[in-house]
Amino acid sequence: MRTAICERLGVEFPLFAFSHCRDVVAAVTNAGGFGVLGAIAYTPEQLDTELTWLDERVGGRPYGVDVLLPGKVDAQVLDREARLADAVPERHRDFVAHLMAKYGVGGAGGPVGGPAIGSPDELGRRVTAAGATGLIDVALKHPVGLVASALGPPPPELVARAREAGVPVAALVGTVEHARRQVEAGADVIVAQGTEAGGHTGEISTMVLVPQVVDAVGPVPVLAAGGIASGRQMAAAMALGAEGVWCGSVWLTTEEAETAPAVKRKMLAASSLDTVRSRSRTGKPARQLRSAWTDEWDSGQESPGPLGMPLQLLVAESAMARIGAAAERGEPGALELANYFVGQVVGQLDQVRPAREVVYAMVSEFADAVERLGRLSG
Amino acid sequence: MRTAICERLGVEFPLFAFSHCRDVVAAVTNAGGFGVLGAIAYTPEQLDTELTWLDERVGGRPYGVDVLLPGKVDAQVLDREARLADAVPERHRDFVAHLMAKYGVGGAGGPVGGPAIGSPDELGRRVTAAGATGLIDVALKHPVGLVASALGPPPPELVARAREAGVPVAALVGTVEHARRQVEAGADVIVAQGTEAGGHTGEISTMVLVPQVVDAVGPVPVLAAGGIASGRQMAAAMALGAEGVWCGSVWLTTEEAETAPAVKRKMLAASSLDTVRSRSRTGKPARQLRSAWTDEWDSGQESPGPLGMPLQLLVAESAMARIGAAAERGEPGALELANYFVGQVVGQLDQVRPAREVVYAMVSEFADAVERLGRLSG
Repeated sequence: MRTAICERLGVEFPLFAFSHCRDVVAAVTNAGGFGVLGAIAYTPEQLDTELTWLDERVGGRPYGVDVLLPGKVDAQVLDREARLADAVPERHRDFVAHLMAKYGVGGAGGPVGGPAIGSPDELGRRVTAAGATGLIDVALKHPVGLVASALGPPPPELVARAREAGVPVAALVGTVEHARRQVEAGADVIVAQGTEAGGHTGEISTMVLVPQVVDAVGPVPVLAAGGIASGRQMAAAMALGAEGVWCGSVWLTTEEAETAPAVKRKMLAASSLDTVRSRSRTGKPARQLRSAWTDEWDSGQESPGPLGMPLQLLVAESAMARIGAAAERGEPGALELANYFVGQVVGQLDQVRPAREVVYAMVSEFADAVERLGRLSG
Repeated sequence: MRTAICERLGVEFPLFAFSHCRDVVAAVTNAGGFGVLGAIAYTPEQLDTELTWLDERVGGRPYGVDVLLPGKVDAQVLDREARLADAVPERHRDFVAHLMAKYGVGGAGGPVGGPAIGSPDELGRRVTAAGATGLIDVALKHPVGLVASALGPPPPELVARAREAGVPVAALVGTVEHARRQVEAGADVIVAQGTEAGGHTGEISTMVLVPQVVDAVGPVPVLAAGGIASGRQMAAAMALGAEGVWCGSVWLTTEEAETAPAVKRKMLAASSLDTVRSRSRTGKPARQLRSAWTDEWDSGQESPGPLGMPLQLLVAESAMARIGAAAERGEPGALELANYFVGQVVGQLDQVRPAREVVYAMVSEFADAVERLGRLSG
C-alpha cells in the first residue's frame, strides 16, 4: 500500500495514529504506520522529554507532533499578565461545586491540573499561537516528520518555522471552506475530519466531507479522519479519495493507552450511540462519551452553559482530575461523571489489544476489503 | 458489478433509488439500477395508477415500493373515527398562523393537503400498519421486486403478505439494535442509514454504522444509505461491507424530479452545512434543508415545539402546501421558509442532470475508484 504521502513522509502504510500517549505513537510508528503525539498535555520541557524518549525507540522511523490552535480564544488568554483561573465566573465555579456535591465526588479540590498538565495559565496559553509555537520550537529540534494543527489555520510563524526545518504541516478541518483556508495558510496535508470523530469536530460526516475536500484542495494530499477504526473503514476512506487515514479513538482502548481504567471500561462497553458533541470539556464542540458531565452542562437545569476556550478547558480539566481519581476509587457518582473524547467508533471497540496488533489487523483487513471490491467489480 | 443482491433481485448494478417521483424510478430502473417508489404521498387508488404507469415503462425490469411505518404514532390515529385535524392543539395552529403572518405568506389557508396527498385523515392513517398494509396490498398486485419499510419494524401481516407473493422485504435502520429487531421481524434486506442521510435518520454516521450492521445481521444483505451520491461514495459503502447502496437525495435535483423549483434552486446552491435534523416536518427527527421553518420550530422563542407523528406531518404538509405555492410566486418570506428533506450530500449537487446520467456517472466513477484502490494496494 503506497500512496504519494507514503513516499513523501517515508511511511510504509498511510495509517496516522493520533495519541497523547508516547507508547502508542512508538508502537504504531514501529509497526509501519505514522504516530502523531498530541502535545497539548505537555509543557515545552515535558514535550522535549517525551520526544527524546520516542527518538530512542523508533530507530529513525517517522512520527509527528500535534498542537491545538483554536481560531478564537477568550481575550484574557492573550493578556499574559492575567491569571486565567481568576477569569472563571463565580457561577461556573459554583456549578462545578454543585456537581461535585450532587454526585458525591470526594477528595481534595487541589489546584487546577496536576503536574501532567501544568498550571492553569500554562495550559490555557498553550492553545494560543504563542503557546503552540513554544511547543513547535521544541518539536523541531527533534526529527519529527509532521507538525499538525487542530482547529484554526496554522499561524504564519508556525508554517515558516516548519518550512525552514523541511517539515510538512498538516491541518485538521471539518468543512471545505476551512480546507481551502488552511491550504492558503500554507498547510501541506489536509486532515478532513467527519462529525463522527472524537474530539473537536464539525457537523459533516466523513463520507460526505472527504470527497468534497479532495476535489477542493487537490493536489494537496488529504487524510480522512472520523469513523475509521478498521481496515474496511480505511478502504472506504481511500475509495473516497483520501491518501491515508488519521485515527484517534481506536488507540484509546489499546494496551499502551493511558486512558483511565474506569473510562476505558466505559469505552469497551459503549455503543456508537453513547457519544455526544458537547462544549462541556473545552468550550468548543468536541465529541466524547456521553456522561452525567455532558448531560449536566448541556441540559441540566442549573447549568450556566459552558465557557469559551480555554476557560472551559480549565474548568473541566480541574474537575476531571478529581472525578477521575474518585472514579478509580470506585465512587459511583464519579463513575457517572467520568468521560473522555472518543468518536462513534467506540461501539466497535470491545477488546484491549496491543497497538501493534491494531495496525496489523487494519493492514490485513484493508487488503481483504480491496480484494473483495475488486472481485465484485469483476 | 454483481453482488448476491443483484442476483436475487435481478438488477444489473446494486444502486437503489428512493424517490417519490415515478419518472425517477422508471429512469433508474431502465438504466440498470433499482427504482423504489415512495408510496406515502398516494392513496391506494393513486398508487395503483402510478404502478400501472411504471409497469408500462420498465419492460419487466425490477422496481420496488416504500412505505413509512413509525413504531409509535399519536394515539388519535388509531381511533378510526377521530378527525385527526381536530387533534392539533390550538397553540400549534396559532404558531403556524404567526409564522405565515411574520413571513408574509399570502394565499388561502385551504384544507390540509391537496388532492395529491388526500385528506388529513387519509395522510395521517397511511403511516399506520393498517394504512401501510392498504398500500402494500395494491403494490403486491403489481410485479414489484421489493417492499421497503422505513422507521419501525414491518408488521407481521405485511411480512406475511409479501412472503406469500414472493417479494422480499427491506427495512431501513439507524442502529445495530434496530437492524437485529428488523431481521427478527422478517426483513430480508437491511438498509443501514447513516445520520447524514436525508429524511428520518438516527445519529450514527454511515461510515460507523454499516460495518457494525453487516457484522450483526450477516448473511442478511445490507444496503448502505446516507452520504452516497457518487461512485466514490458507492465504492466506499461497498468497502464497508454493503452489498449495494440506497440513495435518495441525489435524485432530487435531477431533471425528472418533481422537487418544487424554488427548493431545487436552494438545493443546488446549498453546502453540506445547510441541512439539519429536525422534528419540525414529521414529528420525528428528519434531515432536511435548514430554513426559517426549521429555525422557528426548533429554536424560535414562540415555538410550541413539534407534535408527534403524524400530527406534525399534517401541520407541516398543510403549511408547506401554502408556503410552496407562495415561494413559486417569488414571495421572499415563503422562500425563506421553504425546505424539503435532503441529506448532507446536498453540498455535492450543483447541476440538473437526467437521472439516467446520474446512474451512468456513478457506475463509471465506481469502477474508477475500485481500480484506483486496487492500484494503491498493489
